[in-house]
Amino acid sequence: MNRAHNFNPGPAALPLEVLQKVQSELLDFAGTGMSILEVSHRSKDYEAVHNAAQSLMRELLGIPENYHILFLGGGASLQFSMVPMNLLGPGVSADYVITGAWSQKAFKEAKLVGNPRVAATTEEDGKFTRIPKQEELQLDPQARYVHITSNNTIFGTQWHTFPNTGNVPIVADMSSDFLWRPFDIKPFGLIYGGAQKNLGPAGVTVVIIRDDLLALCREDIPIILRFKTHAKDNSLYNTPPVFAIYIVKLVLEWIKEKGGLAWMEQENRAKAARIYGVIDSYPEFYRAPVAKDSRSFMNAVFRLPSEELENKFLEGAKAHRFVGLKGHRSVGGIRVSMYNYVPKSSVEELARYMEEFARAHA
Amino acid sequence: MNRAHNFNPGPAALPLEVLQKVQSELLDFAGTGMSILEVSHRSKDYEAVHNAAQSLMRELLGIPENYHILFLGGGASLQFSMVPMNLLGPGVSADYVITGAWSQKAFKEAKLVGNPRVAATTEEDGKFTRIPKQEELQLDPQARYVHITSNNTIFGTQWHTFPNTGNVPIVADMSSDFLWRPFDIKPFGLIYGGAQKNLGPAGVTVVIIRDDLLALCREDIPIILRFKTHAKDNSLYNTPPVFAIYIVKLVLEWIKEKGGLAWMEQENRAKAARIYGVIDSYPEFYRAPVAKDSRSFMNAVFRLPSEELENKFLEGAKAHRFVGLKGHRSVGGIRVSMYNYVPKSSVEELARYMEEFARAHA
Ligand SMILES: Cc1ncc(COP(=O)(O)O)c(C=O)c1O
Ligand SMILES: Cc1ncc(COP(=O)(O)O)c(C=O)c1O
Repeated sequence: MNRAHNFNPGPAALPLEVLQKVQSELLDFAGTGMSILEVSHRSKDYEAVHNAAQSLMRELLGIPENYHILFLGGGASLQFSMVPMNLLGPGVSADYVITGAWSQKAFKEAKLVGNPRVAATTEEDGKFTRIPKQEELQLDPQARYVHITSNNTIFGTQWHTFPNTGNVPIVADMSSDFLWRPFDIKPFGLIYGGAQKNLGPAGVTVVIIRDDLLALCREDIPIILRFKTHAKDNSLYNTPPVFAIYIVKLVLEWIKEKGGLAWMEQENRAKAARIYGVIDSYPEFYRAPVAKDSRSFMNAVFRLPSEELENKFLEGAKAHRFVGLKGHRSVGGIRVSMYNYVPKSSVEELARYMEEFARAHA
Repeated sequence: MNRAHNFNPGPAALPLEVLQKVQSELLDFAGTGMSILEVSHRSKDYEAVHNAAQSLMRELLGIPENYHILFLGGGASLQFSMVPMNLLGPGVSADYVITGAWSQKAFKEAKLVGNPRVAATTEEDGKFTRIPKQEELQLDPQARYVHITSNNTIFGTQWHTFPNTGNVPIVADMSSDFLWRPFDIKPFGLIYGGAQKNLGPAGVTVVIIRDDLLALCREDIPIILRFKTHAKDNSLYNTPPVFAIYIVKLVLEWIKEKGGLAWMEQENRAKAARIYGVIDSYPEFYRAPVAKDSRSFMNAVFRLPSEELENKFLEGAKAHRFVGLKGHRSVGGIRVSMYNYVPKSSVEELARYMEEFARAHA
């Protein structure tokens, strides 16, 4: 098998061992004589998967019992709406920190259902190249929550230290860096993320919500859009995306076997260090627009001296089976997405290609 | 491989040939060197799948160009809300025909966002055993739509002839009988259905919406909940449930190869005739509560003379690897779900078991 080097911004690479396991048991799941694609979501065999996915996540991230872990459909974009629908209302405000296109979308949806505020934005000439400093945040101590995007997939920036929001809980879209390393969950009231970058395949979104915030959730919105509905029924109010949750469980098992999130962080730091190392070794050739202290460990964004060279770079990448390197159309250039399950060996091969390319064309 | 006979009410059986194809290409999709679980939803290879799923569905059902086919996440239950959120509003009403628990849920969600009416209900003593007759429907000619549940999964009833609603478009939840046979789509303004019974795995919901109804959809609701958003971006506004859509495409190909929906209907009629044949041959033993002209071709519901015998029936079923026969808790007894991809041979084996069981215990 000739596996591609998958640098897709999402959906993204999964561990080969997980794919092999899925393949080997695809026709007969847990001796049921049925595929995991055919089992009832009300069966004991599936419930074991569902609960194991939750408890593995709880264990790996050290999530205390006062947080519920939900598995929902509809994508992270549905959470842009569900969060304010559940938590805002007359006389209730929330603070949004705008660090890129995804925060902008989240804010736009919040405005449609409530009265959110912008607590800070790092937009300059339509671009976002950094994370705001603590002192730039104009926080409302009465806000129900402060919304941040922990990693900005398109612009390649990432919060390295989460903001201090006092008593106001943080709500974070962690779609593109969930599980990249251990972190202290206590300041967070709610975390959400589409699985398709750092956790599993497209089709399931994880929502982690703290009891006190759940208690404040509205009960006059559609039943299916209430966090309370899904928390009460352990994400089995209606048919969950069974297969995607099954893969999430296998991925979490894989992380645990490898050494947990401490190991994961080490791997991710090594991969990012290699790519940014090449960029910094050829500062005239590879121009990274992002402020150094805001660089994303997941998505490295850079430009070459000309669009012609960028196209040549992407053209040459094909021969190496590097996939997904073209930058987002709003930014241009190159984006290297090196999520959790992109092997170090793929990153190494890309780094060498970058070095050779710079030497040949500088 | 010892395959179970899968009579699950959903998620349900899939064609073995489809599962084998999924298995064979799980590590390398279309020569990409990536799993279908890892490919970008913006890639050409995935778009070919997405578009093929749509055009196969269009071809099999004869769906004209003035209907959009959408693939959404969140389950059919999300459509209970999305439909009225998009289509109702001040001064706009809709008629709901209540034929079971799923119509009740749809109506409940509609009441939370608008002012729907009940056009008819067949509830008697908390049970639903029939589909209403045309003359029982109290239709409002000003209604924006008439909502029906085409097949009542729990109570085992099904609309054999769709109601005449004049100029008012029908909106149908076809979650449990979509694709069971060809039908004339013209009276329908919108059709929705979770894939996990008659179309594919859990994780994707199909919505088919006609241009004129789409034009009436609201634009002051959350962006992600607008049908217009998904129609405009061909269900690629955000990351769709890639894998589930891929399976839907394979299932549709399988139906086409087998002989299309005319063949599918023949198979389904033969399976239902076999099961109801046994029931009618032992009328003292198998008591079917449903009116004969309302019997579902998908879910046959019946009771035995005592709960003790029902338990014995279910116990004995295990040795034959019959799965999913227990009736819904609100109805009790036995439910045989014989959706599209339950093989005739499974139904034949179950029918023989029913005959033997009746003879042994009558
Ligand atoms: C940070 C972030 N949030 C949200 C989304 C949207 O996720 P989805 O496509 O699941 O709606 C993305 C997708 O790339 C993302 O990167
Ligand atoms: C007729 C009908 N409608 C809706 C649903 C709910 O579907 P979901 O679980 O995808 O929300 C079901 C599930 O069994 C059903 O049978």
